[in-house]
Amino acid sequence: MNTWHLARGFRYAGIHSGLRASEPGRLDLALVLSDRPAVAAGTFTQNRVCAAPVHICRERLPATDTRGIVICSGNANACTGQQGLDDARRMTTLAAESVGLHARQMLVCSTGVIGRLLPMPCLETGIPKAAKELAGGADALERAARAILTTDTRIKVRTLALTVNGQEIRLTGFAKGAAMIGPHMATMLAFVLTDAPLDVADVTELAPMAADQSFNCISIEGHASTNDSLIFLANGEGAKLKGRAVEQFAQAAIGVCTDLARDIAADAEGASHLVIIHVEGMRTDAEARAIAKTIAESALVKTAIFGADPNWGRIVSAAGNAGVAFEEAQLSLRLGDYLLYDRGTPLPFDAAAVSGYMKKNRELTMNLVFTLGTGRCTFYTCDLTYEYVRLNADYTT
Amino acid sequence: MNTWHLARGFRYAGIHSGLRASEPGRLDLALVLSDRPAVAAGTFTQNRVCAAPVHICRERLPATDTRGIVICSGNANACTGQQGLDDARRMTTLAAESVGLHARQMLVCSTGVIGRLLPMPCLETGIPKAAKELAGGADALERAARAILTTDTRIKVRTLALTVNGQEIRLTGFAKGAAMIGPHMATMLAFVLTDAPLDVADVTELAPMAADQSFNCISIEGHASTNDSLIFLANGEGAKLKGRAVEQFAQAAIGVCTDLARDIAADAEGASHLVIIHVEGMRTDAEARAIAKTIAESALVKTAIFGADPNWGRIVSAAGNAGVAFEEAQLSLRLGDYLLYDRGTPLPFDAAAVSGYMKKNRELTMNLVFTLGTGRCTFYTCDLTYEYVRLNADYTT
Repeated sequence: MNTWHLARGFRYAGIHSGLRASEPGRLDLALVLSDRPAVAAGTFTQNRVCAAPVHICRERLPATDTRGIVICSGNANACTGQQGLDDARRMTTLAAESVGLHARQMLVCSTGVIGRLLPMPCLETGIPKAAKELAGGADALERAARAILTTDTRIKVRTLALTVNGQEIRLTGFAKGAAMIGPHMATMLAFVLTDAPLDVADVTELAPMAADQSFNCISIEGHASTNDSLIFLANGEGAKLKGRAVEQFAQAAIGVCTDLARDIAADAEGASHLVIIHVEGMRTDAEARAIAKTIAESALVKTAIFGADPNWGRIVSAAGNAGVAFEEAQLSLRLGDYLLYDRGTPLPFDAAAVSGYMKKNRELTMNLVFTLGTGRCTFYTCDLTYEYVRLNADYTT
Repeated sequence: MNTWHLARGFRYAGIHSGLRASEPGRLDLALVLSDRPAVAAGTFTQNRVCAAPVHICRERLPATDTRGIVICSGNANACTGQQGLDDARRMTTLAAESVGLHARQMLVCSTGVIGRLLPMPCLETGIPKAAKELAGGADALERAARAILTTDTRIKVRTLALTVNGQEIRLTGFAKGAAMIGPHMATMLAFVLTDAPLDVADVTELAPMAADQSFNCISIEGHASTNDSLIFLANGEGAKLKGRAVEQFAQAAIGVCTDLARDIAADAEGASHLVIIHVEGMRTDAEARAIAKTIAESALVKTAIFGADPNWGRIVSAAGNAGVAFEEAQLSLRLGDYLLYDRGTPLPFDAAAVSGYMKKNRELTMNLVFTLGTGRCTFYTCDLTYEYVRLNADYTT
């Protein structure tokens, strides 16, 4: 905790409001407040069915005088019709009134079960209570980061300090993941807060770009959720960063997002392995990504990894299934340091040794090397385990 | 068995050749022989990585003097390079020589583990042995249908008799499935044999059309295999069917394929439920299918069904994830007889009763009704269970 470099001018709260009736005391409501108006932008799920809070955030962003975000877990407020929209707006009103602001200055996110109305009495009392507990510092941030979790087993917080134009800038990122994680969107909930002085146009451009290079390169089961949101808040005062300084900042922000994305893949529901898929040598980065994504979402690849079964043919078969043209003789595959398939020809290998590598290492790397160009992608996923099935077979009941 | 209407003029064998070293006595090699030259056509996997026998079949089809098919299980002969192609050709030579034919008159299929060379000594002795055991009748067919299985728990055989132009025509279909089942191809191995007198052009047109309306409407985990093959053989003599008679035959053949496809979904690896997804009211059938397919492949929907968890929000969320435009107010959802979501609004429901429906019935039906047009699709899938994970975590080792 001592090594966190928290962005200045943000306060946090994470409290128990009672949204999950069966879990007394569990943190379920987070509030983030910027001490000053912040420029804000976001990028959201591409699912046609999107949650009420996503509709509200889309209405309000980009913005130049955002002050905070109210977030609840345990209920997604998705597929909840007009009542859901009213409830999401009410959450921002409650949060704004508790700190003397206008509702439009607050954003709102939710995550949890789809299709249930929010138990608003919990929020009517919970949100003012959260406002009273707002504080700076790592402890308050940690409580907020904990309050947004669902089946995650640990908080995901990443901070970074860098010097731009001789000025220290800090970023605080936090996120939640666990399941219903699919790419081509800003995956699940992630927040990046910074004290950098940024123009709203730059933040607006950065949000989808950062999502594309981070959260869109992970997949648990390829199911884009109804609630995915990545929100940037930048509250720095003074002269805005320009040109090269913006680029420097963007690289740092993408780094924070990539670390959070990797944290999400590593802590996916039931996961016993983080799987890192490197694809290189395709005609374009997009082709490399299509292949990596198809492998990452193959239940057959993911169960084999869970079982430490060096059934590499499934990886090659998944690659062939990505809708991208190649010949087998243009592909080689390594699992860890083991070369298993060499330009279309299977090599003899020590199955016990490869299985041992898979058993011993929580992080597994596969390299697919094509001979078609310089397109590349690194993608993260996890294995498919009994625990994933158990968690998801009995989520609402 | 007495109710089977076997196509005339076909003989079958199913024997143990020893392809699976660890399973003494298990049937693993099938041979089908037409007593007369047959017109033949097929449709095959769209995976870029396709098995050696698929390459051989593609070279030889369509054809007007096909006499048979040799099929082995336990080894896919995929990702096996030049040696794999040589081995697949050798299988057809062995089969043809055993019955006094040319290699080009025989087709070949394989299914099983990817990336291993065939143990050819087993086939060098096994194929001539199978040829000696060729016989007509249900017992021989059943042995052939059993010899092509991998993790299937039962054989899939469907037969049909119909009268066309006053002439009785019969169809014999058999297939195997179990896993690595994804649509947009002819799924896994399926064979339709008929004594109808058909023109090769008609069979060539029928094969992909029948696949599209049957095997392409099921999905276990959306992973198109390297070996998927649907092959039609028609050996009827005399005047070829024309016009309306061909259409009558085509409908019967599609019916046989649909029944086999449904058998595959119901006997998918580890499945405890067959799930029937009806989508109607979309602008086009293709849109309806895209939505049904996305639901069928959602690990979150499939685990909820396994757990008898009426977590219907996942179904709506999966529909929203299909890349098809709609508004929530244009969608209603029923699970069995329970209306859960009515034109964008969640309805109160008895969770215990819906869960009870899911627990008690091996076949579950979901109806998604849109208000956008007349496009519709019926799609089959299964649930995602511990047993699926167990079977696939430890397949090759």
